[in-house]
Amino acid sequence: MNLSPDEARSRFAAARVARLATVDEAGHPHLVPVVFAVHGNEIVMAIDHKPKARREVRRLANIRANPAVSMIVDHYDEDWTTLWWVRADGTAEVTETPVDPLVTKYPQYQRIRPAGPTILVQVTRWTGWAGT
Amino acid sequence: MNLSPDEARSRFAAARVARLATVDEAGHPHLVPVVFAVHGNEIVMAIDHKPKARREVRRLANIRANPAVSMIVDHYDEDWTTLWWVRADGTAEVTETPVDPLVTKYPQYQRIRPAGPTILVQVTRWTGWAGT
Repeated sequence: MNLSPDEARSRFAAARVARLATVDEAGHPHLVPVVFAVHGNEIVMAIDHKPKARREVRRLANIRANPAVSMIVDHYDEDWTTLWWVRADGTAEVTETPVDPLVTKYPQYQRIRPAGPTILVQVTRWTGWAGT
Repeated sequence: MNLSPDEARSRFAAARVARLATVDEAGHPHLVPVVFAVHGNEIVMAIDHKPKARREVRRLANIRANPAVSMIVDHYDEDWTTLWWVRADGTAEVTETPVDPLVTKYPQYQRIRPAGPTILVQVTRWTGWAGT
């Protein structure tokens, strides 16, 4: 069954990990797992403090070239009647948004507060599906 | 640390669920969770037998318009030193490839064998990362 936008957002916000899809200038998709915090219809993510290989910040170059992003959270179980997923589609920008919501959600960030740019997504559509 | 292509492929193949990113004609990414089977550098997925809402087959329209896809498998744990992810980038086509590898991997498919088109991905790059 399809989930309501409110239910999709609620399940999404409660998850600990999501996957972020961006698109490069040539139209190739790029995927990374991300931690994130939801506030209303916004999602904030940090770029980890540790040095990154070149490919790791591809998401930033992609967003600057094409702000359309999609993020997904899903639940897998061998009992396929219990599967569910929720998705957030929206527009991203590279910002200096405060990372407090991330630090609140993830104690891991309290030891080493994320530095560097953040990604802020304005979600334009929350969708989802769940088995019965 | 970066994982070798062989290690990335091995971890990917063993996973039960992945996420598939496709891109539509306007450059918007689209994400769905998928079950899949890996054989060499090919990944096969089925479209579920049950009737789908229009948006559910968007992946097929996207692949027909733009065959570039990316798929990710990731492991999350509150101990961030144990995180890992593996990614398959490649080119997809909508085919009638036999679904036997899927039926072998997923007993769920033995009860109701998947009908309809399959998606076959030729993987051009296996990448991955794991905490230490």
